[in-house]
Amino acid sequence: MVETIADEMFREFKEHSIAEFFKKNRQMLGYSGLVRSLVTIVHEYVTNSLDACEEAGILPNIEVKVTQIGENKYKIMVADNGSGIPKNYVGKALATILSGTKFHRYIQQRGQQGIGAAGCLLFSQITTGKPIYVKSSTGNGKTYTCNILINTLKNTPVVNNLEEHEENFRGLIVEGEFADVKYENSEHGVFEYLKRTALANPHCQINFIDPDGKSNLFVRAIDQMPQRPKQIQPHPLGLSTNDLLEFAHYSNSRKITSFMIETFTRITQTKVNEIKELAKDVNLDKSPKEMTWSDAEEIIKAIKKIKWIAPDAASIIPIGSERIKIALKNIFNPDFMNVVERKPKVFRGGIPFIVEAAVAYGGKAGHQTEEEVSGNILRFANRVPLLFDGGNCAITEASKTIDWKRYNIDIENQPISIFVNISSVYIPYSGVGKEAVSKEDEIIEEIKLAIMEAARGVQNFIRGREKISFEAGRYKTIMRYAKQLSINLAEMTDENQDRIFKELEKLVAQHYPKALQKKEQYEKENDLLNQKNEKNDNRTGRIKKDEIKD
Amino acid sequence: MVETIADEMFREFKEHSIAEFFKKNRQMLGYSGLVRSLVTIVHEYVTNSLDACEEAGILPNIEVKVTQIGENKYKIMVADNGSGIPKNYVGKALATILSGTKFHRYIQQRGQQGIGAAGCLLFSQITTGKPIYVKSSTGNGKTYTCNILINTLKNTPVVNNLEEHEENFRGLIVEGEFADVKYENSEHGVFEYLKRTALANPHCQINFIDPDGKSNLFVRAIDQMPQRPKQIQPHPLGLSTNDLLEFAHYSNSRKITSFMIETFTRITQTKVNEIKELAKDVNLDKSPKEMTWSDAEEIIKAIKKIKWIAPDAASIIPIGSERIKIALKNIFNPDFMNVVERKPKVFRGGIPFIVEAAVAYGGKAGHQTEEEVSGNILRFANRVPLLFDGGNCAITEASKTIDWKRYNIDIENQPISIFVNISSVYIPYSGVGKEAVSKEDEIIEEIKLAIMEAARGVQNFIRGREKISFEAGRYKTIMRYAKQLSINLAEMTDENQDRIFKELEKLVAQHYPKALQKKEQYEKENDLLNQKNEKNDNRTGRIKKDEIKD
Repeated sequence: MVETIADEMFREFKEHSIAEFFKKNRQMLGYSGLVRSLVTIVHEYVTNSLDACEEAGILPNIEVKVTQIGENKYKIMVADNGSGIPKNYVGKALATILSGTKFHRYIQQRGQQGIGAAGCLLFSQITTGKPIYVKSSTGNGKTYTCNILINTLKNTPVVNNLEEHEENFRGLIVEGEFADVKYENSEHGVFEYLKRTALANPHCQINFIDPDGKSNLFVRAIDQMPQRPKQIQPHPLGLSTNDLLEFAHYSNSRKITSFMIETFTRITQTKVNEIKELAKDVNLDKSPKEMTWSDAEEIIKAIKKIKWIAPDAASIIPIGSERIKIALKNIFNPDFMNVVERKPKVFRGGIPFIVEAAVAYGGKAGHQTEEEVSGNILRFANRVPLLFDGGNCAITEASKTIDWKRYNIDIENQPISIFVNISSVYIPYSGVGKEAVSKEDEIIEEIKLAIMEAARGVQNFIRGREKISFEAGRYKTIMRYAKQLSINLAEMTDENQDRIFKELEKLVAQHYPKALQKKEQYEKENDLLNQKNEKNDNRTGRIKKDEIKD
Repeated sequence: MVETIADEMFREFKEHSIAEFFKKNRQMLGYSGLVRSLVTIVHEYVTNSLDACEEAGILPNIEVKVTQIGENKYKIMVADNGSGIPKNYVGKALATILSGTKFHRYIQQRGQQGIGAAGCLLFSQITTGKPIYVKSSTGNGKTYTCNILINTLKNTPVVNNLEEHEENFRGLIVEGEFADVKYENSEHGVFEYLKRTALANPHCQINFIDPDGKSNLFVRAIDQMPQRPKQIQPHPLGLSTNDLLEFAHYSNSRKITSFMIETFTRITQTKVNEIKELAKDVNLDKSPKEMTWSDAEEIIKAIKKIKWIAPDAASIIPIGSERIKIALKNIFNPDFMNVVERKPKVFRGGIPFIVEAAVAYGGKAGHQTEEEVSGNILRFANRVPLLFDGGNCAITEASKTIDWKRYNIDIENQPISIFVNISSVYIPYSGVGKEAVSKEDEIIEEIKLAIMEAARGVQNFIRGREKISFEAGRYKTIMRYAKQLSINLAEMTDENQDRIFKELEKLVAQHYPKALQKKEQYEKENDLLNQKNEKNDNRTGRIKKDEIKD
């Protein structure tokens, strides 16, 4: 055979593991920049902890400790009171990329991918060469400790020093040493990350011990667990031809008809008949294992023509306006806020999602330093704060398209926080690092409507406040003159200055009563507004059986 | 044993393949949005074609054909005259994620990951259920054809209908059917992508047959292959402790000393002695296989204290200012351009990179429609155009921080194109879809300096043009009056109007000679400027032995 250039080139052909890939491209997991890398570690472990607590129905108590041990070198510990990890799963759960309990489930949760914890380990390994120390128990009376490493060439776990002893404990403690990281108390730092986590998860308590040894407690604001999302069946409108075909080939149902009724939500015998009517060429009585691509294509075409009841919103548990209000008050204590929970919507045909938005004004809202005050956007997906890659995110994009002036809002110069949380069984993140929601048109549009709805309430408040401050300013100026006049008059006439001032005040009040009236009127309006908003919250309560059509 | 919640939860524990992961998260590979998805397919195949041609030293002839076959459904064909793929590698090369000839090599190339082509196949499979058709030969007289699929559960290739016959052909043809895609002739479309590819690769010829059947030929502007980058050894300053340790453990050298000299660039016996002096506790005479983390840490510390010769720039082949000029002229025919090639720099301690920047003004530069004219940024990494995720990219970030007014440039309203190409053995992309360069400080800073240098030349040009157009405008107005006057005088005096006009012209020239002078002067200045820029190109020719220190 002729030896060609290609033969020579392909002699170097190799396959590599996903762990090798991310070792080389750690920035894709969020490990880029010293400050961001530290937040990414905390973010991954805290996210896992919250999921582990909630799935087990436990109110989360989380402790995060960051200790400096060298230049750009820190020890990081995260402890939770969650379900714990069974001993024989610890390596797979924390030291293998792309494995976990979550990937195949159609249920709303923070983690989706089975990458996060293994990514942290990879990062500790390549920056300090150290394993992660694990202590865990599932609450069965036995507690184990071990050190875990990842074999990057094979993407397999290495568990060392495994020891077990009798101890009544339930939860997971992970501790590791990381270099190329830095703690910073900024808007992109761990403190802010945890503050926002507490904001979106008022049922959890977080104690953060910072590198100065100071304990920062984010107190639990609500003692009740949020409702648990149900694992649901996919909605027919969310299926692609390929999805349908794969479900069919894995099914053990006898016929395509029964397979469809059993596998998907909202497909009843009536709907099957409608499909049969439209997809005449497909034999729905054959085994789903025999379904061909063109069968599936025909069925999907039929599905798109039929009216469907919307996906069951029970699969999505938003934070809820009451909880958001309590949390915002707890953390910002704003002068005014407006919270909006929208009805469930769908994207890509049939994946349901819910957007919540709030606008908080005054108090500690926005970004406030001694030099300047400005607004900020707090982005959340399934209650997880998104701190980075804002430029790439549907939430930022939606906010950008809003004409803030229409709402009397000057986002550059006012103490204002825009809060957005998107909840879904499947959040389409734009990257593996899960820091931004992909800019899908339907999602952007819905977020935009949510923010605008929230902004309308604030608009009235700001308008009122501006008027009152204008009128109050005028009144104040006049009274300053009155004061000076009273002093001068008192000097000239030897009369009591106080009495003169009071008379002047009365005089002014006769001629300029508006300021005082305005003040009262404004306060009344504001109360009404708040009452109205509360009514709105009820109105936007989720309606479950809304008919949608593609 | 006590049955705990965790035991129940972990019963659903699963591992999944990288193919399953990307099937679920296709937007992470660039498959989000109809138009973008189509560009991503073309981008992946064309990138592979260019690499295959260049590695084999072949001037690339590439044909791309996009045919509409349904609503949001297209057939896409990419053919090249490259090295071809040996028959027994076709499945691994085009239908397995994370495999290829490139991942482990320390050499500048477009592809790095071994994800692109398999990602295209994954996308065709999940949108149309169709395999990709392949025809290839390495030029050994035998040509094969086959259909490929990917087994997503296992991330393994499936090759069907493999046939071989005698045919003299060399290269690769891939053809597939894709749905959820759309052809659009916009700034984010395939035409623009290929135009920019031609711009950064003037040695390649691309024929694009668009959905209307129209052939768009991007003609080869230069008949010479670009210099081939050399595969180089890593520079000591680019090593992390973990890197050093891994290299050591794979090494068959007898001692750490010889291992270092053999494995890395710029490490000589003298440098080894310097390391020995600084890392006193490490026994450099033991086998590299025995190197511990703390040994490696000590050695890395020593390396950071030593003066090193910069990495060999021969590992990086930028486009070159001459080639950029020819290409810009070829595609934009601008009124003026300034091209800058900077000296090699390093990021993350020791990864070398080179930035080239150009500013082109007038002609077809910028974004020009009937309604408006504006500037645009053309981003490239290793000559590959980056069309999406600009908000996430170091190049956009660098351009944003520039005070354009200082350069008389109004980027919003002028026909101006900012061209930036970053070349490196390792480009830190921010996502798997490789559409943006990670915002590393050293990279942003260097890009900023490059653009500013390029902008300075344009500044003078624009200033000159503004003056000349002002003066020319005045002159034109005066001559219009002179014309009318000559007509009136001719009528009154019956004299020859032409003669009168010429006399008036002379008169004007005596009194207003500035306009004409200005015109000549400006033309001279412009020539000088162009000459100076050419000199600059020579001046910024790469200096190879620049000493750097961390």
